[in-house]
Amino acid sequence: MESKVSSRLKQPLAPEVLQYIFLPRLNREFFANFEMLNQINLAHLVMLHEQGILDHDASVRLAQALLKMQADGPDAVELDAAREEAYFNYEAHLIKLVGQELGGRLHTARSRNDIGATVDRIRARDFTARIATALIDVADAALRQAGQYADCVMPGYTHMQAAQPITYGYYLSALVDAWSRDVDRLLHVLETTDASPLGACALAGTSFPIDRDTTSAMLGFSRPLASSLDSVASRDFALELSASLSIMMITSSRMVQDFYIWSTPEFGYLSFPDSIASTSSIMPQKKNPAVLEYLRGKTGHLIGLTSAAFATVKSTHFTHSGDSSRESTRTCWEACEEALRSLALIKLLVERVEPNRARMASRAAEDFSTVTDLADLLVRKADASFRDAHHIIGAVVRQALEAGIPAKDITPQMVNAAAAQQLGRRVALREDDIAACLDPVRNVAARQSFGGPAPSLVTGRIGEQQAELAKQRSAIAATVQRVADAQDLLRQCVQTLISSESAVTSVLEA
Amino acid sequence: MESKVSSRLKQPLAPEVLQYIFLPRLNREFFANFEMLNQINLAHLVMLHEQGILDHDASVRLAQALLKMQADGPDAVELDAAREEAYFNYEAHLIKLVGQELGGRLHTARSRNDIGATVDRIRARDFTARIATALIDVADAALRQAGQYADCVMPGYTHMQAAQPITYGYYLSALVDAWSRDVDRLLHVLETTDASPLGACALAGTSFPIDRDTTSAMLGFSRPLASSLDSVASRDFALELSASLSIMMITSSRMVQDFYIWSTPEFGYLSFPDSIASTSSIMPQKKNPAVLEYLRGKTGHLIGLTSAAFATVKSTHFTHSGDSSRESTRTCWEACEEALRSLALIKLLVERVEPNRARMASRAAEDFSTVTDLADLLVRKADASFRDAHHIIGAVVRQALEAGIPAKDITPQMVNAAAAQQLGRRVALREDDIAACLDPVRNVAARQSFGGPAPSLVTGRIGEQQAELAKQRSAIAATVQRVADAQDLLRQCVQTLISSESAVTSVLEA
Amino acid sequence: MESKVSSRLKQPLAPEVLQYIFLPRLNREFFANFEMLNQINLAHLVMLHEQGILDHDASVRLAQALLKMQADGPDAVELDAAREEAYFNYEAHLIKLVGQELGGRLHTARSRNDIGATVDRIRARDFTARIATALIDVADAALRQAGQYADCVMPGYTHMQAAQPITYGYYLSALVDAWSRDVDRLLHVLETTDASPLGACALAGTSFPIDRDTTSAMLGFSRPLASSLDSVASRDFALELSASLSIMMITSSRMVQDFYIWSTPEFGYLSFPDSIASTSSIMPQKKNPAVLEYLRGKTGHLIGLTSAAFATVKSTHFTHSGDSSRESTRTCWEACEEALRSLALIKLLVERVEPNRARMASRAAEDFSTVTDLADLLVRKADASFRDAHHIIGAVVRQALEAGIPAKDITPQMVNAAAAQQLGRRVALREDDIAACLDPVRNVAARQSFGGPAPSLVTGRIGEQQAELAKQRSAIAATVQRVADAQDLLRQCVQTLISSESAVTSVLEA
Amino acid sequence: MESKVSSRLKQPLAPEVLQYIFLPRLNREFFANFEMLNQINLAHLVMLHEQGILDHDASVRLAQALLKMQADGPDAVELDAAREEAYFNYEAHLIKLVGQELGGRLHTARSRNDIGATVDRIRARDFTARIATALIDVADAALRQAGQYADCVMPGYTHMQAAQPITYGYYLSALVDAWSRDVDRLLHVLETTDASPLGACALAGTSFPIDRDTTSAMLGFSRPLASSLDSVASRDFALELSASLSIMMITSSRMVQDFYIWSTPEFGYLSFPDSIASTSSIMPQKKNPAVLEYLRGKTGHLIGLTSAAFATVKSTHFTHSGDSSRESTRTCWEACEEALRSLALIKLLVERVEPNRARMASRAAEDFSTVTDLADLLVRKADASFRDAHHIIGAVVRQALEAGIPAKDITPQMVNAAAAQQLGRRVALREDDIAACLDPVRNVAARQSFGGPAPSLVTGRIGEQQAELAKQRSAIAATVQRVADAQDLLRQCVQTLISSESAVTSVLEA
Repeated sequence: MESKVSSRLKQPLAPEVLQYIFLPRLNREFFANFEMLNQINLAHLVMLHEQGILDHDASVRLAQALLKMQADGPDAVELDAAREEAYFNYEAHLIKLVGQELGGRLHTARSRNDIGATVDRIRARDFTARIATALIDVADAALRQAGQYADCVMPGYTHMQAAQPITYGYYLSALVDAWSRDVDRLLHVLETTDASPLGACALAGTSFPIDRDTTSAMLGFSRPLASSLDSVASRDFALELSASLSIMMITSSRMVQDFYIWSTPEFGYLSFPDSIASTSSIMPQKKNPAVLEYLRGKTGHLIGLTSAAFATVKSTHFTHSGDSSRESTRTCWEACEEALRSLALIKLLVERVEPNRARMASRAAEDFSTVTDLADLLVRKADASFRDAHHIIGAVVRQALEAGIPAKDITPQMVNAAAAQQLGRRVALREDDIAACLDPVRNVAARQSFGGPAPSLVTGRIGEQQAELAKQRSAIAATVQRVADAQDLLRQCVQTLISSESAVTSVLEA
Repeated sequence: MESKVSSRLKQPLAPEVLQYIFLPRLNREFFANFEMLNQINLAHLVMLHEQGILDHDASVRLAQALLKMQADGPDAVELDAAREEAYFNYEAHLIKLVGQELGGRLHTARSRNDIGATVDRIRARDFTARIATALIDVADAALRQAGQYADCVMPGYTHMQAAQPITYGYYLSALVDAWSRDVDRLLHVLETTDASPLGACALAGTSFPIDRDTTSAMLGFSRPLASSLDSVASRDFALELSASLSIMMITSSRMVQDFYIWSTPEFGYLSFPDSIASTSSIMPQKKNPAVLEYLRGKTGHLIGLTSAAFATVKSTHFTHSGDSSRESTRTCWEACEEALRSLALIKLLVERVEPNRARMASRAAEDFSTVTDLADLLVRKADASFRDAHHIIGAVVRQALEAGIPAKDITPQMVNAAAAQQLGRRVALREDDIAACLDPVRNVAARQSFGGPAPSLVTGRIGEQQAELAKQRSAIAATVQRVADAQDLLRQCVQTLISSESAVTSVLEA
Repeated sequence: MESKVSSRLKQPLAPEVLQYIFLPRLNREFFANFEMLNQINLAHLVMLHEQGILDHDASVRLAQALLKMQADGPDAVELDAAREEAYFNYEAHLIKLVGQELGGRLHTARSRNDIGATVDRIRARDFTARIATALIDVADAALRQAGQYADCVMPGYTHMQAAQPITYGYYLSALVDAWSRDVDRLLHVLETTDASPLGACALAGTSFPIDRDTTSAMLGFSRPLASSLDSVASRDFALELSASLSIMMITSSRMVQDFYIWSTPEFGYLSFPDSIASTSSIMPQKKNPAVLEYLRGKTGHLIGLTSAAFATVKSTHFTHSGDSSRESTRTCWEACEEALRSLALIKLLVERVEPNRARMASRAAEDFSTVTDLADLLVRKADASFRDAHHIIGAVVRQALEAGIPAKDITPQMVNAAAAQQLGRRVALREDDIAACLDPVRNVAARQSFGGPAPSLVTGRIGEQQAELAKQRSAIAATVQRVADAQDLLRQCVQTLISSESAVTSVLEA
Repeated sequence: MESKVSSRLKQPLAPEVLQYIFLPRLNREFFANFEMLNQINLAHLVMLHEQGILDHDASVRLAQALLKMQADGPDAVELDAAREEAYFNYEAHLIKLVGQELGGRLHTARSRNDIGATVDRIRARDFTARIATALIDVADAALRQAGQYADCVMPGYTHMQAAQPITYGYYLSALVDAWSRDVDRLLHVLETTDASPLGACALAGTSFPIDRDTTSAMLGFSRPLASSLDSVASRDFALELSASLSIMMITSSRMVQDFYIWSTPEFGYLSFPDSIASTSSIMPQKKNPAVLEYLRGKTGHLIGLTSAAFATVKSTHFTHSGDSSRESTRTCWEACEEALRSLALIKLLVERVEPNRARMASRAAEDFSTVTDLADLLVRKADASFRDAHHIIGAVVRQALEAGIPAKDITPQMVNAAAAQQLGRRVALREDDIAACLDPVRNVAARQSFGGPAPSLVTGRIGEQQAELAKQRSAIAATVQRVADAQDLLRQCVQTLISSESAVTSVLEA
């Protein structure tokens, strides 16, 4: 079989080159790219016809062949790694269907370079829309849980030390704000990808009178990318997407880490249902957090894939080349696949992990995280300066720790005595004021500052967050709809082309 | 001197901890943060007063003390690493000025955690605005050069092989499109940073009736950040900024790499003035491209700093901690400083490197990069399919190479003969059509497709690009102006506070 | 079918967990690990029998079953992701063969954790030996070429500027020294991996009287790894291996980069045969360096995989866990596979790329790289200080460049005049001395300092290098032999066990 | 002042180039390199004299000048960034002392390139020896603690779930094995660095009859590095060192992570003295683990610095250049400094953190980590298969958890009943055998397999480890001694040179 595409090269490629470079690449890309190649070829063909670059008869016959290829699917194509990559294999099949004289005309006024750049941008766009949607699904799930647990009091930690009581709902709601910024970054990636490189040709356009606006519109892009050189040289959208995914996974890995520690028996805050736990062969009492460990590892993996993409593009020439254009994006697609899987697992976690209300509440009452508000009480009611209040409460806590008294059993006497000593004057805080601080439920309820953990605030905030997520979801939907509309338009244009001249005998029937 | 801030800790910190952690941190941060701390403290004070949390007299006296500290500057503050970090040293000086009873009140209803988060967002915002402006300056400089060299024909490369003639102006204009996306990413970072964490306190707000909108406005933010926990836990803006800087440097490293090769005598396309070349101690004929090598290395450095930030935040708990909040941003600030220096050097390169028109033109005429258009000519004028044309030109090139004939000397006879052989019919391309392809100047001028290299197109495109950059510059300027207005507002509020009650005797005069 | 391994867990794992975590892992690991599991199980069984932990009859029947599994191969095993990973699927098949009562006894006195650690060390050892051998093959190929081109004079570059003439053989020989250090690092990895974790059990050994020396010896290790906790917690050998592969690829990427530039027509130093070049669809004159670009990209990929492994293990607990033990090594195995493929391609390059002697020689004569020795001549023969000589030659070069004279046409008059002016005295260098400097062939031949490029030196050095590589090859071979001997020993022990008691009826025959 | 070093370059370097590249580099390197430059210059001078390349008189006068520079120190040298880097500034001062005619002769038969490579190798060697020693100090400290706590029983964890009882001493001893491999990697770096590049000159040796063995020996190297090109092109030792430091920090970060969680009140295993804890401004009861968070962050930092070095060298040409030779090592030196500081802090942690024996013991008795041995008991004493035993114990644990019974209160009746049900026969384990399993102290003591946690084993193992560390310490000491001996030799050679001809009048006295 003739697989040579250039008449100048005479020796076949070395088997190692075929086996290690082109074959894996072809297997990876041909099936993944096939439908995108169909779309690109049809759009290009319609444009060539409209611009009079290809005559009517040839255009109709090519359109029929392309539709047949689309209908037959990628499995109908006999692949040959010696043709190096996806497009050449596609074209070889087309030529098998319609002959070289006709089949060879489809590649007029373009290059593998702009095809490759177009495929990459379509893929990045589609992955980004899917991932951002999946992340919004995670955030929505977290908000549902946050609503359910807005009043589920627990110790809040800083430096892994109990600091102030919060609620589990407050915690989840905070995470959603972080994820929402991750969605914003993905929305920006959608903008970065939204321009068509098709028609840039090898790196410098063409002297054929092509119309790049038409192909851009039929492929669902808002506009053609301005510079032809930039079109084929740049894959910064893949670097931006990679980095955004890494940051998204880093955000998520932090929740994972909290879950990892909070689900130990020593903390005892969270329970994992069997559906997300793994087992030990030798220790029957254990439920191993396989999903959590997997996700932490996957975060490391994505960080590495971003490093790989960055290191690959660094110091390449500003033009199309194998490393700047292809190796640079390979790890990005892997990161996209991994991110989608990870988000499905993260959603499971968010939905299925159950907080242990009683354990959380009892720790919050005992672990001294309530005493910050006791210090604030001294400021408000005893006119202590913040620093004095800090010293007073420090003394009280030290006394309690030494006596083995938990926070909830601190007495007004202890506080008033320590305050009198530090301030040099009599202090008489009211018992109920002190009790209100030391009761985690009342303590949390009192923290009403904007963005605070009081359950009423959190419940209100969740409503706003749902609205924000809905807005982000709409923005993604708009892109998805634009692409779907474009595919409809392209389909109609092709149908119009084919049906326009019934007299044309299909080359395929012959 | 008393530097203990907690009454519970009794032993001093180990010398290693002071010397290796707190002292370098203090030296790095105190001077860099001082003015930000002034702003934050003044804004917080004004708000405490307005909300009635601090009484008038205390507010006035604290305001006077803060203005004195601002006027005296950071050098007036005696630093002590045992106080651990910038804010505690700041506060210790304030207490020295006004006494603990008063000085200790400023920290009411906040925490080091929200102060730190606020400082980090202000710093990220300011760096981002400066860097984006510097990058626009680079792009503007490149456009000026692009305009001057829009007709400077040179070979265009793909895979480091001459592919089609372009112009040096076209090349620079393409780069500007890539840099413009880098600016877009920085503009998105500006949005990410634009919310105030102040008032989030330790992680969970406060029961004091603070007004976070006021402090947000006086610090130049558009709004307070919604969740208090997210406010202190998240530094994703620093990861996004780091990654954006890496991508920006990667874009630039590609120009650097082109310049590196194009300035070799073997290519001979670019000349470096002495002002940006380094010398050899032993080889007097050389001009070493020290700036280029430095910038490639710096790109590697920034990639590493991004990896560091990513690895640091991964799997930290979702709350405030030393690594998630502080170590995570440390490398970001370093990257910002390096990026600013690098952009100054890149601007020098863009402005001072001189293309050698004659050498570029002669290579473009000889290196076969013009023959792609010869293939297109066969499609247009001899009704060859693209694949046939490809074979024909391949045969011609092979013949020329074997005969040692440069591209410009390919004859119509050679083309017509090869075409006839491939197509099996007589072909008679016109001599002038062939000449138009083989002359790089006419060849480039003919590539008029949108985004192509024809000088007239490039000149027009440069105008659009200047408009786009101007728009980006305005967006940054709007942020800068908002911050400046906020500083004015804060200054006025403080003045109003101070002057409102002339009867208050300044504690500082006493 | 019963796939539950713990009686405590009652719900099935979520489909997402099976599909995204366990199924891919099983597919990746089961076939790759199968033979290693056979070896480990047989070795463990022999030891259990020798120590009297398992009785003779049970041991014989288990041995027969394991041999049958080994003979049937992995395809005979029905895989079920719900069993989570390779060992449990292995064991389930064993139990299917011999029943739970007997099959369950094989796991006595061990754990999945030590099995996993043992598999990882065996795999790392085998990969390391194969990669190091492949790298030595590359180096040997380079030495063969170096010998052939020891006298092939070319310009030597620093900062991408011609600096002094060298030879292509000298260049390749220098590369071999760098690769030889890469081999040394891999030899160190072999040492790091050379200890058996088997018998460490979950993390803390066992109260059964096992003999870890026996299993260690039968698996080809020099000794058991001392600490059981360290045995299951540590995968630093994978980090070391990953990093060593990255460094090896970085070394190689530098040759690739040289080849990339030297094979441009502008340099014209190297020719690529068609067997390692890729083609352009639109530019028939080009030979695209697909292999070179692939290898540069692959270097970026391996750098990223190392980052991934580092980030994954960072801050995990020092014990066995999913991320510290499994996710940490996953990217290492990928890096090993990629490295093997890359080395095959690098070997192709080294062997097939052809230097263009004439072009190299003419550039070396013209590009002023010879003048350093002219400066040295002034020091030796005109008693100039090095700095004076530097100035003199700088002046001569400037004069030549301005007059358009290539280096080889610099005259004695030019040199003597410039010297007289700088030194303030008459200088009369001999014409032949100057000619010897300016002739690249004689110039190179004169540089006889240890490690220099004179062809005679290089030829001698190549012999030493071959001896060094042979020594490294022996070191690897010793490990490979030790492993092969161990496998023989294990096979014999198993045979002895089985045949020892002919009265035992095989459970498999029943 | 005249700072131009080449007569060809006429314009001064741009201020940005001086300020951003050369000035920071000079500040960073001059003081750090000064003494190394002294040594290198003296060794080179002695060799030039011995080889007759420099005459006696000149040699003596240069030696006197160099000794004066050494005595005066780096502060005596007026630095000028326009001279670009350390050596040129050094030489300018020398010329100021002895005039250009003489001072310029020192640079005969060498280049900045080989000087730079030599400085880098000396620095890497010295850093490596210091870091490896500091790490051995950490390991020794850990062994001292391990000895003290060899019998301090605590739960051992896998997947952050209690798995089997171990001791704190066993844990520390295991860590030491990991650190010992980190030391081994550093010892390999010492070997990699141990060859002298001096005399390689620019990249290709020299025609002067230099003796590289002499300079190598006088600088404390075992041999000259064979290839001159490799000598100036390669910095793989810095990549290897960087990676080794990252791995060492990763090992350490795992201990840090254990300490981070174990020191929470919820775990309560470890106490931090005030000397290594930081405080909260608002929560007086907290002791923030600033050192731990710093070290985790620092691990991220070092991972990033390694990425930076890798990305920087990737795809540079295989020769001397600014990025391959200089930017590539810059992050390595930073990593070395950080590693030394981190090790001092890690040593503090190891020495000062105190385990809470009572809390550890009570958790170990209650948390079911003892039941694995109960399963083993069923295998040993009730002839259950491992899998059956696993099921039996799983049932017992489930029953205990449901009844709220801690592990230590599991009764023989519970075990025997569950066993009977699973095995279908009567089982009667002895009460004392069960008690021995459920008592963590006896449980640990029984695990006597090689490498296990039984206190007697750990105590014995510590002795072996001390011996291993002592051996590693000797290996480092041997290198340090070789270097010290070389410095003595060099000093003697210089003295002999100077004193050999009393008639020579010191140029410095004149």
